Amino acid sequence: MPARHFVKYTFLKLDPAWRRLGDDARAAGKREFAAACADFAEGHLLRAFSTVGTRGDSDLMLLSQAQNLDRIHEFHVVLGQSGLMKWAQVPYSFLAMTKPSEYSDESRLEVRPAHGKYLFVYPFVKTRAWYALDADERYRIMQEHIALGREYPQIELNTSYSFGLDDQEFVVAFETDDAAAFGDLVQRLRTTESSRYTLRDTPVFTCISAPVERALAALDGEPLAAEIEVGL
Amino acid sequence: MPARHFVKYTFLKLDPAWRRLGDDARAAGKREFAAACADFAEGHLLRAFSTVGTRGDSDLMLLSQAQNLDRIHEFHVVLGQSGLMKWAQVPYSFLAMTKPSEYSDESRLEVRPAHGKYLFVYPFVKTRAWYALDADERYRIMQEHIALGREYPQIELNTSYSFGLDDQEFVVAFETDDAAAFGDLVQRLRTTESSRYTLRDTPVFTCISAPVERALAALDGEPLAAEIEVGL
Amino acid sequence: MPARHFVKYTFLKLDPAWRRLGDDARAAGKREFAAACADFAEGHLLRAFSTVGTRGDSDLMLLSQAQNLDRIHEFHVVLGQSGLMKWAQVPYSFLAMTKPSEYSDESRLEVRPAHGKYLFVYPFVKTRAWYALDADERYRIMQEHIALGREYPQIELNTSYSFGLDDQEFVVAFETDDAAAFGDLVQRLRTTESSRYTLRDTPVFTCISAPVERALAALDGEPLAAEIEVGL
Amino acid sequence: MPARHFVKYTFLKLDPAWRRLGDDARAAGKREFAAACADFAEGHLLRAFSTVGTRGDSDLMLLSQAQNLDRIHEFHVVLGQSGLMKWAQVPYSFLAMTKPSEYSDESRLEVRPAHGKYLFVYPFVKTRAWYALDADERYRIMQEHIALGREYPQIELNTSYSFGLDDQEFVVAFETDDAAAFGDLVQRLRTTESSRYTLRDTPVFTCISAPVERALAALDGEPLAAEIEVGL
Amino acid sequence: MPARHFVKYTFLKLDPAWRRLGDDARAAGKREFAAACADFAEGHLLRAFSTVGTRGDSDLMLLSQAQNLDRIHEFHVVLGQSGLMKWAQVPYSFLAMTKPSEYSDESRLEVRPAHGKYLFVYPFVKTRAWYALDADERYRIMQEHIALGREYPQIELNTSYSFGLDDQEFVVAFETDDAAAFGDLVQRLRTTESSRYTLRDTPVFTCISAPVERALAALDGEPLAAEIEVGL
Repeated sequence: MPARHFVKYTFLKLDPAWRRLGDDARAAGKREFAAACADFAEGHLLRAFSTVGTRGDSDLMLLSQAQNLDRIHEFHVVLGQSGLMKWAQVPYSFLAMTKPSEYSDESRLEVRPAHGKYLFVYPFVKTRAWYALDADERYRIMQEHIALGREYPQIELNTSYSFGLDDQEFVVAFETDDAAAFGDLVQRLRTTESSRYTLRDTPVFTCISAPVERALAALDGEPLAAEIEVGL
Repeated sequence: MPARHFVKYTFLKLDPAWRRLGDDARAAGKREFAAACADFAEGHLLRAFSTVGTRGDSDLMLLSQAQNLDRIHEFHVVLGQSGLMKWAQVPYSFLAMTKPSEYSDESRLEVRPAHGKYLFVYPFVKTRAWYALDADERYRIMQEHIALGREYPQIELNTSYSFGLDDQEFVVAFETDDAAAFGDLVQRLRTTESSRYTLRDTPVFTCISAPVERALAALDGEPLAAEIEVGL
Repeated sequence: MPARHFVKYTFLKLDPAWRRLGDDARAAGKREFAAACADFAEGHLLRAFSTVGTRGDSDLMLLSQAQNLDRIHEFHVVLGQSGLMKWAQVPYSFLAMTKPSEYSDESRLEVRPAHGKYLFVYPFVKTRAWYALDADERYRIMQEHIALGREYPQIELNTSYSFGLDDQEFVVAFETDDAAAFGDLVQRLRTTESSRYTLRDTPVFTCISAPVERALAALDGEPLAAEIEVGL
Repeated sequence: MPARHFVKYTFLKLDPAWRRLGDDARAAGKREFAAACADFAEGHLLRAFSTVGTRGDSDLMLLSQAQNLDRIHEFHVVLGQSGLMKWAQVPYSFLAMTKPSEYSDESRLEVRPAHGKYLFVYPFVKTRAWYALDADERYRIMQEHIALGREYPQIELNTSYSFGLDDQEFVVAFETDDAAAFGDLVQRLRTTESSRYTLRDTPVFTCISAPVERALAALDGEPLAAEIEVGL
Repeated sequence: MPARHFVKYTFLKLDPAWRRLGDDARAAGKREFAAACADFAEGHLLRAFSTVGTRGDSDLMLLSQAQNLDRIHEFHVVLGQSGLMKWAQVPYSFLAMTKPSEYSDESRLEVRPAHGKYLFVYPFVKTRAWYALDADERYRIMQEHIALGREYPQIELNTSYSFGLDDQEFVVAFETDDAAAFGDLVQRLRTTESSRYTLRDTPVFTCISAPVERALAALDGEPLAAEIEVGL
């Protein structure tokens, strides 16, 4: 039986003072950060994303996954020892677990390696009125939502569950190369019945997929290449 | 067929400590910033605005536009390397895309070069009750809103779409030389039926159009000239 | 015909580190700040207020007024060059315009020179339900509000309009020597019909009128005199 | 006729860097702070409280009272000159006035000298629905609230009025030696009719009464004694 | 008769600059912190938790308990003198008391020594509509909630009461080795009737139990061991 996984989204914002350090100090700090990522990536899924140019309050996002929460704790301890983290804040952090869906067979017990250029991530909370509906009614309402999503096969959804673990109920992450289509889908979903039961679905993060070293390079001067190679 | 564009609003606030630096350091930092802007402006729309004297939490706003989000990412990476950005925060950031309107033929697929002295910018979110109305009803309600706007031909509206990309649904930007007329229009719009479906329309930014160099000069001592030359 | 004016409320909070500077540096910083104020005050209304002892998040407030927003921008650029502003934040900022009232003949197109010891300032937003009432109904409801205000002739009201310009709809500023009477009036206004349509009326600032130099002196050790001379 | 008083609650949070200063610097800073308190306390009520161990965002609270707001302003100007305030923020500040109650004869026109070990303080705002009730109805509802309070004679209430002066309507301060009884009273008050008209009653501060010097000593190493002497 | 206890949850976040200090300074700071904990733990319950890798805004949590609030105050005064606290903020702090439950016989007057690997902690506030129900109705509704909890015997609940003492009504803390089961329980509780009366139940903290020294070691490089020994 496939196992459930912990999924962690860690957003970093560099202190502007970090860019005032010398080249060597910055390079060493990034090397140590990349080494911690490489260690964790042996045996666990790890993906990096740049948010430079899409957000003002975040520069880089790491998505880490493990069956054992100890591994994610350990990864963040080691990461915290890198020179880069001595100048970084963590403005957003989402902890969740994978879980089979009540509403769909396409359940995902693991976040998969990169398929798309963008990952659109947001925390999600439903109103309590939603949970007061009976299960059949909730199932019916979700089918309209799911059917609309299927009109966009180029967009892949990962849902993970934060109940009891973190400040949201779900963390949703949509992966695609087509940002315009994704925006259109989200706008169309506003008119579905399920949308009336949304309590909170912000902040929304447009994350650009990149190997760890490229996401780090974007922090002090080297943009991601036009042709981004997906995957670590 | 004209293409949709990404539109990015980037607001900057300088650390007061920046003003304690020597003249040379400040001048170099601004030169590097202006050079990054000039590079991007070759082939893309870029506009600068000063918010000194209109906001307490922002000093300068850059509006950048590109068909490819990579170009906006790249621009912000390069910008981040300027000396100025080593002392700046980004208190607000809005990412959106242009798109033909459902309600009006005057659709805009590009933000245009400067026409007015002021740009009034705010993020915009409608209530879920709005989206529960049927499409005809929404169309009817928007016509009253649009008709009122047409009584103010000196005010030009740019709407862009943030669904799925950022924390708001729309970013609206009104351009005009006549701030009093704009204030009157917004006050009159409060009594329209469409206004009842507004969930959030703040913060509101009064942005004064200026060439990049003038917007930068306003950061450390030289006000925009009384007669502002519009355009980069 | 009298012209409408822009009105700007600028609240400053000094970094505690400023008080660790030497006497000369602090004195020079305040002199430069006062000089910028004196320049602007030639031909424009400018008033200063101390909030030391009334607020924790603000030390000083400047109220500036001009027919042309360029003058207010220019004033803040010059002010920003003073030594004092190199150690100050602007925790609150309100931009508005004067305008004749729909509900009262006592319209004010200019904020007037100081008459009172205190200025009580707050941003004000009405519910959308208010704007859904028809104009006659709104007029009727405002008459009760205005009549109650007239029972307190020692309190003078300045209302300015922020629609489209800033995060609130109105900035209201009540001027009086009698803080207790003002508190009583505000408490009594809670039971009026108009009060049910208030969405937001905070933060509230109790501002103590003072010449610029006295408001500056209160930042590092010299309280406003018991007998305050009103006016610049 | 007894006069109404201004009441000011000033909460301080020390920068952790203050604890890195040498012993002499810290001692001098506290001495200057205590001297400012002693000056004000000649002729005015002044009380000090430690919040070390009860709050994370505040270390010390001063309650000052005067008939003339100038005295409170003056006190805070002088306080601001102490070495301690060069390393302190004011995360919370409440300004209010005493006033006879509409609902009870036990009106208080002065906060009295310390009687209890704890002061429980919070800002308080009622819903607008409350103010839409007629005066008799409000009176009736308050009697249940007051009767319940009288079952706890060991708890003393001070209410002061912030309408028009600050961000809340009331500042309430309960004084007692018995924290458990106070918690029980507040829990029981939740089921009264008056409780349905509460809009906001947080943050809540558990303040431990102490002479100024003891509250200052608790900032850098010396806990309040087990047997606290109440009063300045 | 067993006595009620004060319970204090203190969350710490280290300034990234702390990690830039030398090894000796960091080691001394942690030693002093651990010594303060050891002193308090003689005669009082004290538990430590790491939140590295589960939260972005907290690194470590201390849970302290005493019958006398003076002991908790004293503990935090001494803790504040450690080198570590000279570089730490307290982003969250919850103060509460134990109390027999109205709804269940399984009342707890003390938080017990560690049984589980995780402690899931959050502040909890009910709507005022809950308190308007009569006591029998509230009792009936809570029985469904409690029955569902009993289906998860591997999860142990500690509830403490903050009415009048702090910003929430309750602090709830669930202890278990099985995070997935806990997440499932919380998700299932959303559909109970009692859930409709929840006003606020965030932030949620996933806290990993550890001896004080291990929780401290995780701050600068040594992860908690895979096999964590529970208890101090």
